[in-house]
Amino acid sequence: MTNQASFSARLTSAITSRKTPACVGLDPKPGMLPPIFREAAAKSPADLAAIFETFCREVIDAVAGLVPIVKPQAACFESLGPDGMLALAGVINHAHAKGLLVLADTKRGDIGSTAEAYAAGWLWGSWGADAMTVNPYLGLDSLEPFVQACEEHKAGMFVLVKTSNPGSRDFQDLEIEGTTLYGHVAKGVEALAERTAGSERYGAVGAVVGATWPKQLDEMRAAMPHSWILVPGFGRQGGRASDVRAAFHEDGLGAIVVSARDIIYAHAREEINGGLGEKEWQTAVERATHDMIDRLAADTPAAALR
Amino acid sequence: MTNQASFSARLTSAITSRKTPACVGLDPKPGMLPPIFREAAAKSPADLAAIFETFCREVIDAVAGLVPIVKPQAACFESLGPDGMLALAGVINHAHAKGLLVLADTKRGDIGSTAEAYAAGWLWGSWGADAMTVNPYLGLDSLEPFVQACEEHKAGMFVLVKTSNPGSRDFQDLEIEGTTLYGHVAKGVEALAERTAGSERYGAVGAVVGATWPKQLDEMRAAMPHSWILVPGFGRQGGRASDVRAAFHEDGLGAIVVSARDIIYAHAREEINGGLGEKEWQTAVERATHDMIDRLAADTPAAALR
Repeated sequence: MTNQASFSARLTSAITSRKTPACVGLDPKPGMLPPIFREAAAKSPADLAAIFETFCREVIDAVAGLVPIVKPQAACFESLGPDGMLALAGVINHAHAKGLLVLADTKRGDIGSTAEAYAAGWLWGSWGADAMTVNPYLGLDSLEPFVQACEEHKAGMFVLVKTSNPGSRDFQDLEIEGTTLYGHVAKGVEALAERTAGSERYGAVGAVVGATWPKQLDEMRAAMPHSWILVPGFGRQGGRASDVRAAFHEDGLGAIVVSARDIIYAHAREEINGGLGEKEWQTAVERATHDMIDRLAADTPAAALR
Repeated sequence: MTNQASFSARLTSAITSRKTPACVGLDPKPGMLPPIFREAAAKSPADLAAIFETFCREVIDAVAGLVPIVKPQAACFESLGPDGMLALAGVINHAHAKGLLVLADTKRGDIGSTAEAYAAGWLWGSWGADAMTVNPYLGLDSLEPFVQACEEHKAGMFVLVKTSNPGSRDFQDLEIEGTTLYGHVAKGVEALAERTAGSERYGAVGAVVGATWPKQLDEMRAAMPHSWILVPGFGRQGGRASDVRAAFHEDGLGAIVVSARDIIYAHAREEINGGLGEKEWQTAVERATHDMIDRLAADTPAAALR
């Protein structure tokens, strides 16, 4: 796949055409699937992988017209071994076929030549995602092969800065010379974002900052003007629309907000699912997606996209 | 697979029976394969994956009687997509069949429920490795699902503490309250090692500290008495036997030293390969393995294992 425009340009175009920065997370888990898929639990990894793929394809069919981008969680597929990885490849292809951008949530990271292999696989090789998430613990030289792949193949990457979980306090919040570890990482991310932005507003390198940290989202938006911010943790992890407001610039760009469970398992949300039958779980997914889009438009600068 | 003994007990037993702490890294890369595999470069991912698998199986055949453990690098296989992951599964199975322990070098890490999926897949599910490497950036709660899987399924995990690359200075070396980030992580690792050790000397949770940092190996050995230390970077990355000495306790236990390229691509080392034909690349692998084992025995406490 050769992309003509940069990832940032494609993301901007997808967000403005769908009029929302909502991203649907694809996290298939056996015990949470809609009842019609529940037989899943008792099956072999190969059968379960096939069910995961069908489920995700049908989620994609439900949200393809509504959102700009989906984020498959590699771990859910990887837990099923090679069969799961094959299903993941099918899910990525289907999302592309439906006109969605694909952000592979891989959180990969390794030393130079190994990072190169990850970047090659995910960003332009066999997996062919538009962007991936990356872990910065190994340092800036470990990010460089991903950055180069982004530049050469018009892909994107999101570096973990301040993650949504409570334990992100343990190391990310440690204070260092008047700032924090995540502040140091953010400085590195912004430098890479600026370097890769060229004449565009945002670079190929973005940051992950959890919806559960509104104050830090504000701080990070200011610290990384050239970086897209990927905001997970919206919905069940506790983040509300008002919490993610600070991640955006005034024009409604600069952030992507992810919801996974609240959308793909919307069949289990009484306030969304009321009156629907078991086979209508995709309608629940659509309703939940509209609900998220509306909440973002009501309470964040994403209103400007309408 | 149900293991009767803890990972630490199985590792100790494998090291003492092979009389060496040498670990062979399985990092298949197209351009570096022995000439008889070189047709690889022009093939499809599926063909290349099959060649990677054959190559790694034959490396395993060459080293199975010599070393206790092998470390496949997930990235090399993942770069080929689902076909590569299938090859990786084949390599893990073959190593087990040949009586080797398998440490999957995955460097995974994610928030709770997602980390659970990684742990399930790698440590007791479809991949079935004996141990895996884990990235601590997300914090202690992100390590917990791996720890629980280790305890329930007698597996092991190695947390990145101070990695072998020069860029490990960027964040890992940042000074925090009189110590460093890697020192903070080491404190967390040691607490988990002690907790999982029970009545054994070492716990299920170990640390990764690069062979390129002899001073820090010394510091980390002292800071983490209950932790196995996995030492990558021996050989081409610059670490010598004398550099890794400090990673061991006096009885020659407590550390595993990894060499990948120097062993699996020994056909390209003139001093090892002298006089061998192209088809004898496995002999070069054996010679290089003996060479590493001898060097560790000559210059480190691993001498005590003889």
